[in-house]
Amino acid sequence: MIVVMQTGSNETQIQAVIERLEEHHLRGHLVRGAERTVIGVVGAAIPPTLREELEHFSGVKETLRITQPYKLVSRELRPADTVVDVRGIVVGGNRCVVMAGPCSVESEEQIMATARAVREAGASMLRGGAFKPRSSPYTFRGLGELGLRLLAQAREETGLPIVTEVMTPNDVDLVARYADVLQIGARNMQNYQLLEEVGRTGMPVLLKRGLSATIEEWLLSAEYVVAQGNPNVILCERGIRTFETATRNTLDLNAVALARRRTHLPVIVDPSHGTGKWYLVPPWPWPALPPEPMGSSSRCIPTPIGPDPTAASRSTRRTSPP
Amino acid sequence: MIVVMQTGSNETQIQAVIERLEEHHLRGHLVRGAERTVIGVVGAAIPPTLREELEHFSGVKETLRITQPYKLVSRELRPADTVVDVRGIVVGGNRCVVMAGPCSVESEEQIMATARAVREAGASMLRGGAFKPRSSPYTFRGLGELGLRLLAQAREETGLPIVTEVMTPNDVDLVARYADVLQIGARNMQNYQLLEEVGRTGMPVLLKRGLSATIEEWLLSAEYVVAQGNPNVILCERGIRTFETATRNTLDLNAVALARRRTHLPVIVDPSHGTGKWYLVPPWPWPALPPEPMGSSSRCIPTPIGPDPTAASRSTRRTSPP
Amino acid sequence: MIVVMQTGSNETQIQAVIERLEEHHLRGHLVRGAERTVIGVVGAAIPPTLREELEHFSGVKETLRITQPYKLVSRELRPADTVVDVRGIVVGGNRCVVMAGPCSVESEEQIMATARAVREAGASMLRGGAFKPRSSPYTFRGLGELGLRLLAQAREETGLPIVTEVMTPNDVDLVARYADVLQIGARNMQNYQLLEEVGRTGMPVLLKRGLSATIEEWLLSAEYVVAQGNPNVILCERGIRTFETATRNTLDLNAVALARRRTHLPVIVDPSHGTGKWYLVPPWPWPALPPEPMGSSSRCIPTPIGPDPTAASRSTRRTSPP
Amino acid sequence: MIVVMQTGSNETQIQAVIERLEEHHLRGHLVRGAERTVIGVVGAAIPPTLREELEHFSGVKETLRITQPYKLVSRELRPADTVVDVRGIVVGGNRCVVMAGPCSVESEEQIMATARAVREAGASMLRGGAFKPRSSPYTFRGLGELGLRLLAQAREETGLPIVTEVMTPNDVDLVARYADVLQIGARNMQNYQLLEEVGRTGMPVLLKRGLSATIEEWLLSAEYVVAQGNPNVILCERGIRTFETATRNTLDLNAVALARRRTHLPVIVDPSHGTGKWYLVPPWPWPALPPEPMGSSSRCIPTPIGPDPTAASRSTRRTSPP
Repeated sequence: MIVVMQTGSNETQIQAVIERLEEHHLRGHLVRGAERTVIGVVGAAIPPTLREELEHFSGVKETLRITQPYKLVSRELRPADTVVDVRGIVVGGNRCVVMAGPCSVESEEQIMATARAVREAGASMLRGGAFKPRSSPYTFRGLGELGLRLLAQAREETGLPIVTEVMTPNDVDLVARYADVLQIGARNMQNYQLLEEVGRTGMPVLLKRGLSATIEEWLLSAEYVVAQGNPNVILCERGIRTFETATRNTLDLNAVALARRRTHLPVIVDPSHGTGKWYLVPPWPWPALPPEPMGSSSRCIPTPIGPDPTAASRSTRRTSPP
Repeated sequence: MIVVMQTGSNETQIQAVIERLEEHHLRGHLVRGAERTVIGVVGAAIPPTLREELEHFSGVKETLRITQPYKLVSRELRPADTVVDVRGIVVGGNRCVVMAGPCSVESEEQIMATARAVREAGASMLRGGAFKPRSSPYTFRGLGELGLRLLAQAREETGLPIVTEVMTPNDVDLVARYADVLQIGARNMQNYQLLEEVGRTGMPVLLKRGLSATIEEWLLSAEYVVAQGNPNVILCERGIRTFETATRNTLDLNAVALARRRTHLPVIVDPSHGTGKWYLVPPWPWPALPPEPMGSSSRCIPTPIGPDPTAASRSTRRTSPP
Repeated sequence: MIVVMQTGSNETQIQAVIERLEEHHLRGHLVRGAERTVIGVVGAAIPPTLREELEHFSGVKETLRITQPYKLVSRELRPADTVVDVRGIVVGGNRCVVMAGPCSVESEEQIMATARAVREAGASMLRGGAFKPRSSPYTFRGLGELGLRLLAQAREETGLPIVTEVMTPNDVDLVARYADVLQIGARNMQNYQLLEEVGRTGMPVLLKRGLSATIEEWLLSAEYVVAQGNPNVILCERGIRTFETATRNTLDLNAVALARRRTHLPVIVDPSHGTGKWYLVPPWPWPALPPEPMGSSSRCIPTPIGPDPTAASRSTRRTSPP
Repeated sequence: MIVVMQTGSNETQIQAVIERLEEHHLRGHLVRGAERTVIGVVGAAIPPTLREELEHFSGVKETLRITQPYKLVSRELRPADTVVDVRGIVVGGNRCVVMAGPCSVESEEQIMATARAVREAGASMLRGGAFKPRSSPYTFRGLGELGLRLLAQAREETGLPIVTEVMTPNDVDLVARYADVLQIGARNMQNYQLLEEVGRTGMPVLLKRGLSATIEEWLLSAEYVVAQGNPNVILCERGIRTFETATRNTLDLNAVALARRRTHLPVIVDPSHGTGKWYLVPPWPWPALPPEPMGSSSRCIPTPIGPDPTAASRSTRRTSPP
């Protein structure tokens, strides 16, 4: 922590800060400049409330934090990449892993057809929702345990491990009985009881970044899981909320590059959710582009490949992105 | 819903949309213009997924929603203001109601001294946290049930009703035994199980707006509570996340004016949290302003009055805003 | 500036930073902690590029700035409020100053009727646009010099000083011949040639905050004007761009409170533009609120009072907010 | 335009809207539903102010726009890609074009060495600033015409076409004498006089997206240039401002995909500016990542390749990103 004194602050004011630090067994190092004085405090044990308290001291201009509040997930602590093993599929290694599937499990016919299409397209895991968080109380919220059973059936046939969301601490045991990866949705990124509960399972956890969570907050939420002794966290960038509303979310690709430096945990990207429009996720190389929405004549549209394409299910029935 | 066709869309494409609407028992009204055609669909029962599905139809440019997805909380449905009665204190009537108290309940001494100061300053309710959501797993998370008992003790002495947060469905019964108003924090605004659980209690609920929730999403979360038969929802604007980081949050005063038109529920404001700096919430009239942070010589600082001043506790011990 | 070294950085790396600082005649003060070392540099003359350069040094984790880059507009430099005198109307003193008028000057009849209404409603200045910045090239962009002449005519009859926008350096002389206050619009807040040009006139300047400008950037733009020897800058908060689109802008009231502490310049607020919906700016006390848009039967609507009501012109003809 | 009436609006209110439309020679098509009525207006000539005016009519709930306000840059109007020819280098065709160079031209030695490095690394154009927009009036603002001459000298030796910024209408003629592509910076994206001035030159224009400009506003600014008869506009996504401050900007990759559908103009990306940290722009394949800032021992760092790498100049002297 750095305590920045106001221009013209006096010795009594500086001394008051030093003394308060000493009450917390911290040592303040004075750095005096032509214009102002700053006090450096370098130590692991600075209580979070102390920083704010000092901002209220006479003669103090502001305080600055100089260390991140997370430890276990930090690459400074552990330089080597974490690798998460999901039934033999390695996430965080050298190979690209694709997870695909419909937004919600809707019926046996739908999930089985989708699972087969996902496997044929070359993806490694099947993702689908049995419990769905919905802004409106009047919207379909998933099939619940029936959906989980259908996912298990799809795994049995295709061999694809299953990624599915758990929304509340009470459901963790139930979902853990069926799933291979427990997904924490963006709206629950700071549902701390839920984070601790999935932490206790020791199972792979896919932690979506909150709609407006900073990278630091995202890593702190991962810290909640890892602090329970569960190192198997996969981070997922899925788009943030910005002023731009022409796309549903703004995929923050920067966050992937930066998070990779700050943490040793693997980071995956959900491009179809990140844009909110599946037709913006064509595979490379780009085709010649017709004016947007390309319409239902999906024959001529190259299949989007990504963590959450609804493409797979488009061949059997029209469905909506999550 | 309005379906906007592309310039140059043809009759077959228009007909395909009309037919899909009819499969949902909806009637599409054609409006043909010089440049393009739009199809209007006016009815209560448009499934949310249908809109997105139609965006993928050939010849369709985009779709627009024309009704809000909430009903029970809408002022269109119920023009008269909802008034919430909290042990005789009326929220949403003609009188200004002030709720005050510390961020967290920390000790008997602290909460009792604060409660007396709050009552003397003229506030009507005591607010304090026994369960605290924290970004970091390494931060004090509240006294739990002990905190609730201390709040009840403060109520006994001062007569002030108690507002306190509940964070997880499992704790609702416990918190409801002590609290007069159940607070849902910003991070839980879309914790739907929790919303339904507090809805079932029938008790007054203070619903904070999420950090980056639109006004519509906020009202939809209120709809979750009211849909359980509990009309006693108080909305609380507490600042949103924007690009500006010089203040912790950006208090969205617009949202209060707009929400008051869209809903009949009462709306309160948390100014000290909305700025994140208590010294930006002086009472009117403004004093002459010294350069910021005014320092710890708090004698000369006018007492902030607002829903969440930490000022009350400043006289007994220094504490941090929530 | 604070240079934060990585955990485990070595003496050679620390020495490289110290030496580079010395090449710029700066002295680095070492603060060594259990976990890491930081280097404090306190001086007025740190080149902006040096900070970023040091971030690329081996063993450096990050750098932090500890002084604001503005000087002349800072309240640290000059604690007393600046007061701007506009033909005897004092902005920044103890009295509330209201500026009102239409978005654009459209005709003699319109501006004269509006000016009279503005004066009768008790406002102190007339505001109206002769040059209008427009997102689309196909929109009315103002009457130009004819508009300026009509504003001067309105001033002659009503005695109200005139506030009007100037958009490009070449027009400053022309606009300055008619206006009493030169307005810099939000889109031009960082048009530096324009800022310097209006700085050179010595006239009162109303500087709107950019749509997504931080408070610091806003004050830096004011610094551009004041650095030309013109202290007569009035800051204007007019709403920022956030994720919320239910209102056109988000009025950032926090910014007013914070800017008042950081600068001695007066700060005004444009509430009708800040919300983008005039019907959200009723005068206090609030009337009972009908569902939103209150319709054209404007008889029953209390006249909005604020810097930019279009209300004044509503009695003569309907017009749009800027 | 769609006019949405309130639930319970009556015939007189609907008729008032229809009549006002007719005064503008527009025809309103009624669509009556169970809950409410909407009025569709489909035509090219709806004045922008009319929409807002109607929002104030009695019984009107809101209005929705159904056409984009740009025409010439729209892919609906012109489905085929625009290709911009810069001295034989084709932007918008099938080949990837890389533009590189330092933020500012600082000296002959620097720009010549950089230009050679840029050419050797395989880039097709040289980019460098002679006029630099700066938030602070106390920062280096470029060498001006001397910088332009040095760029021309670098072109002579290397054959690379030159991209350089012009900041104010008065400088357009000067910059056009030296440059091959006129760059409009993010802060000037809505400097309409400047847009029209570069439009009149007929030269290739590189139009950066504003810090918080929507895709629609960006395209409208392009429309300003094209409306002057200059079709040679290259759009440049360079990062937007969001709540996330861990990176300087948030590169909005979505915008590229969406803009490519809405417009026929070519879109390029500035990745080093979009993140604001050059070390987040390594070439593919990614190397093993050390903890962030990789330090000055740049030997082991793969050269970033992108529109704005400062990498090229790093070998000769340390310099800062723009």
